[in-house]
Amino acid sequence: MSNNSTISELVAWVQRAHRLGTIGELLGWDEQVNLPAGAAEQRAAQHAVLAESLHAAASAPRIGELLAGLEQRDDGLNDDERAIVAQARRDYNRATKLPTEFVREKAIQGSRGYHAWAHAKAQDDFAGYAPVLQKNLEFAQREAAYLGYGGAPYDYMLDKHDPGLTAAAVDRLFGELKRDLLPLMRAIVASPAATRAREVAGRLRGFPVDAQLRFLREVTERLGFDYTRGRIDVSLHPFCSGTGSDVRMTTRFKEDHPLNSLFGAMHETGHGLYEQGLPVAQLGTALGIHAGMAMHESQSRLWENQVGRSRAFWRSFEPRWRELFPVQSAGVTSDELHLAVNAVQPTLIRVDADEVTYNLHIVLRFELEKKLFAGELAVRDLPAAWRVASREMLGLEPANDREGVLQDVHWSDGSFGYFPSYCLGNMIAAQLWARVRQLRPGIEEDFSRRDFSWLLAWLRENVHAPARRFSALELVRRVTGEELSPRHLVEYLRERYGGLYLG
Amino acid sequence: MSNNSTISELVAWVQRAHRLGTIGELLGWDEQVNLPAGAAEQRAAQHAVLAESLHAAASAPRIGELLAGLEQRDDGLNDDERAIVAQARRDYNRATKLPTEFVREKAIQGSRGYHAWAHAKAQDDFAGYAPVLQKNLEFAQREAAYLGYGGAPYDYMLDKHDPGLTAAAVDRLFGELKRDLLPLMRAIVASPAATRAREVAGRLRGFPVDAQLRFLREVTERLGFDYTRGRIDVSLHPFCSGTGSDVRMTTRFKEDHPLNSLFGAMHETGHGLYEQGLPVAQLGTALGIHAGMAMHESQSRLWENQVGRSRAFWRSFEPRWRELFPVQSAGVTSDELHLAVNAVQPTLIRVDADEVTYNLHIVLRFELEKKLFAGELAVRDLPAAWRVASREMLGLEPANDREGVLQDVHWSDGSFGYFPSYCLGNMIAAQLWARVRQLRPGIEEDFSRRDFSWLLAWLRENVHAPARRFSALELVRRVTGEELSPRHLVEYLRERYGGLYLG
Repeated sequence: MSNNSTISELVAWVQRAHRLGTIGELLGWDEQVNLPAGAAEQRAAQHAVLAESLHAAASAPRIGELLAGLEQRDDGLNDDERAIVAQARRDYNRATKLPTEFVREKAIQGSRGYHAWAHAKAQDDFAGYAPVLQKNLEFAQREAAYLGYGGAPYDYMLDKHDPGLTAAAVDRLFGELKRDLLPLMRAIVASPAATRAREVAGRLRGFPVDAQLRFLREVTERLGFDYTRGRIDVSLHPFCSGTGSDVRMTTRFKEDHPLNSLFGAMHETGHGLYEQGLPVAQLGTALGIHAGMAMHESQSRLWENQVGRSRAFWRSFEPRWRELFPVQSAGVTSDELHLAVNAVQPTLIRVDADEVTYNLHIVLRFELEKKLFAGELAVRDLPAAWRVASREMLGLEPANDREGVLQDVHWSDGSFGYFPSYCLGNMIAAQLWARVRQLRPGIEEDFSRRDFSWLLAWLRENVHAPARRFSALELVRRVTGEELSPRHLVEYLRERYGGLYLG
Repeated sequence: MSNNSTISELVAWVQRAHRLGTIGELLGWDEQVNLPAGAAEQRAAQHAVLAESLHAAASAPRIGELLAGLEQRDDGLNDDERAIVAQARRDYNRATKLPTEFVREKAIQGSRGYHAWAHAKAQDDFAGYAPVLQKNLEFAQREAAYLGYGGAPYDYMLDKHDPGLTAAAVDRLFGELKRDLLPLMRAIVASPAATRAREVAGRLRGFPVDAQLRFLREVTERLGFDYTRGRIDVSLHPFCSGTGSDVRMTTRFKEDHPLNSLFGAMHETGHGLYEQGLPVAQLGTALGIHAGMAMHESQSRLWENQVGRSRAFWRSFEPRWRELFPVQSAGVTSDELHLAVNAVQPTLIRVDADEVTYNLHIVLRFELEKKLFAGELAVRDLPAAWRVASREMLGLEPANDREGVLQDVHWSDGSFGYFPSYCLGNMIAAQLWARVRQLRPGIEEDFSRRDFSWLLAWLRENVHAPARRFSALELVRRVTGEELSPRHLVEYLRERYGGLYLG
C-alpha cells in the first residue's frame, strides 16, 4: 500500500472518530441551550453511550497499524502528511493508553467533582470540597503517568490543551509579564479617570434585550461571522462550539450591562471565525483543527479587544448604537462611552475582569496550579494562598472562598492547565496585532469604514489555514518573525490605556 | 443463566442501541429547527457516522445469542418478557439483515433528499427532484428485499411503521371510508354554511405571533403537556420528536391563519403526551415504545379534533382567546368562531386540510404509493397522477407541483408507507372517542371546566402504558371491544359536521 492510500485510510478513521466527537459537542451545546430541566438523566445516558462509541472509534486497532506503518516510512512523507500522522498518534495514544477502568472512574469523579464544587460554592464550604480536589489532582497525575509524563504531570496538563507547551516556558513568560504589568495596572487604577470610567459604565442601564441582540447580530455579521454556517443563542455561560460550517456561539443578556453581552459576543465571534476558517474537508486531522487553546483564545481576544474596544470600531458603530438606544445613550458622550468600553477595575471575579487585570487573574491561577503539582502547596492551604496572591496581584482580598478559590468551575472536573491559555492568548493577540499594524498601518481606517475584511483575510491565511500544522509558539514565530513575548501585550495595553488613564 | 438475567442483559443491549437512536433523532430535530443553511453536508456526515455506530450497537452478535436462547425457552417467559423478545427480534432482524454499506448510503441519501426536496419545493422543480425520489424508491425496495419482503415491498413499508399492517388491510379500510366519506364531504361543501365558515375563517387576520405562542403554550400546558420534560419550537414543517423526558414538538405561525398554529400545536401535543406517557426506565423496549404510527396519530388527532374542535373546549378557552386578541376577535361571534374552527373546505394542501377532507388527502397518497411500489406508476408521471387523483378526491387540481406532489416532506427521505397512519389514526381516534363517551358521558363538561385530566388518565392507562405490548389493531380491539372500522369516524364526522352544515 502506498503512503498516499495509507494516509487516506488513516484520515478516514480519524475523521470517523472526530465526527462522533462533534455529535457529542452538539449534545453539549443542546444541553446548555435547549434541554428541558427534567431531561438531565436521559441526556447523561445519551452522553455515556456516545462516549463508548467514540472511544471504540478512536482506539480502533486499525489506526494503530496504519500509524506504525507510516511512522516507519517517515522519510517518505511530506510535511502535511507528517503533521497528520503526529496528530493522529497523539489522539490514538490518548485513546489507548488509559485503561478503560481509569477512564470510567475519572468520568464519575469528574461528574461528582462538578456537583461537589457547585455545592461547595453555594455553601462557601472549601473544606467539604478539598478531598474532591485532592482526588482530581491524583487522577491528573495518574493520567500524566499513563501518557508518559510521570515526572512532569503539569507539563502534561499544559500540553493537553496546547501541544508542546511546558511549565518552564509559561513560567518565564508569565514572570516577565507580571513584572511589567503590575506597575502599569496600579498606575491605571490610581488614576482619577478610573473612577470616572466606572461611573459611566454604571450609567448604562435599561438596554432592551431585543435591541441588544439586534446590535450584536449586526456587529458580529459585519466582523465576518457567517450566519449561514453558524448561529448565536442564549445560554447561562457564553461559549462557542462546533466547527467548519456549523459553528454555534452563545451569549447572555443583562439590561444593565449592555457592554457585557456585546463584548461576550465579539469574543465568541473570534472563536467562531477561527473555526469557520478551518477547511471542512480536513476537519479532525492536523490540517483541519485549531492549533490549541492559546491560539484559540488569541482569536477571541483579538476581535474582542484589539478590534472591539478600539476608537475606530466605535467611530463606525456608535451612530447605530445611539440609534438603537436613543434614550439610554442620551447622557453619555462619545469620550465617556469610549472610557466605559475600556473601564479598568480590579475585581475578585475573573470572568468580570477587564483586559488589563484579567491577565493577573491567570498568573495567580498558574502559580497556584504549578505549586500544587510540584507538591509545594497542599490542597488544604489553597484558600490562604489564594488570598495572599489575590492581594499581591489585584490589591484585593476575597472575604470568602466563593469569591476566591471556589469561583471557577475548571478544577472541579480536573481541567488543570487550562487557565494559562487565556493569558497566552492575550499575548499572542497583541503580538499578531503588532504585526498587522506593521503590514497595514491604515488598518484602523478600515475599521472606521466598518471594513474588517483585510484583517479577516490575513488571519484566515496566516493563522486559520495552517490549522494544527505547527504548535502555537511555532506558528507565532512564523507569522510574526519573533518568539512569543509579553512585550507586545504590555506595549499594547500601555498605548491604549496610557492615553486614557495616564495621559 | 436464568431467563431473568438473560432478559436484563438483552434489555441493556437494546437500550444501548435505542439511546444512540435517540441521539440521531436529536440530530434530526436540530436539523429542522437550528441547523445553519450551509451545514447540510457536515450534518449528513454526522448522520452517517452515527448510523454506523447505531448499526453496530443494534446488530451486536451478543443480542442474537441472547435472543436465540430466549426464543428456545419461550414457555418460561411471561407476557411482558415475550413482548420484549419479539420487539428485540424485530429490531435485530432489521439491523442485521441490512448491509452496513447500504445503511450508510441510505443515511446520506436521506439527508440529501431532504435538502433536495426543500430546494425543489422552493423552485417548483419536480424534474430536478425526480431522480432523488427515484433513488429513494429503489432504496426502499432494496431494503424490503433484505428484510424478506422482496415480493411485497409496500407491505414492508407499512409494517415498518405499524407492525403487522398490510396493504390489503389498508385497502379495505380506506375503500370503505372513501365510499362513505366522499358523499358526506360533497354534501358539506355544497352547503351554504360552508361558504359562511370560509368567510369567517378569512376574517381572522393579523394575530400577532407572540400572542399566538402565548395562547398555545397555555392551551398545551393545560391539556397536560409537561414543559419540564419537553419544549416547543418553530420549524418549516411541524413535527414531534423525542421520548420520555425529552419530547420536542414544533409548530409554525402565520398572522392570518391563527387557528393553524393552534391546532398544529394541539396535534403535536397529542403525540407529545403519548411519548411523555411512556416509562423512561423501559425506553427502547416493547414496554417503553409506542405501538406504531397509526396509534401515535390517533393520539394527536384525538387531542386536536375530538377535544380541540369541540364546543366544550372553546367554551372554556374562548374568553382567554378574546382577551389576547381583543381587536382581531371583535367582529366574530361565538357561533361564527365555532364554525371557523370546524370550517370544511377542500384545499390542495394536506397540512391545511380540515378533519373531513384530510382523510381523502391520505387516501390519495396511499393509492399513489401503492401504485409506485407495484410498478404501475412511474416517478416522472407522479405530478400528472397527482392532479387526476386530486380532482377525484378533492374536486381541485393543483396549478403547480409545490401545491401538489412537492408539498410533503415524507418521501424526501424515503418515508414511504407513513401516510396511511394519519388516516388510520383518525379512525382509531374516533373509535377510542366513542368508547370514552360510553365510559364518561359527561366528558365534555370536564372540558368546559378546562379539565382534561380524566381523559389523559384514561389514555395513559389504556393506550400509553401498554406501550408496544400489542399491535395497533390488537390494542384497539382490546380497548374498544371491537375490530377497527371506519364506521366510528364517519359517524363522528356526521354528528359534528352534520349539525353545523346539514342540520
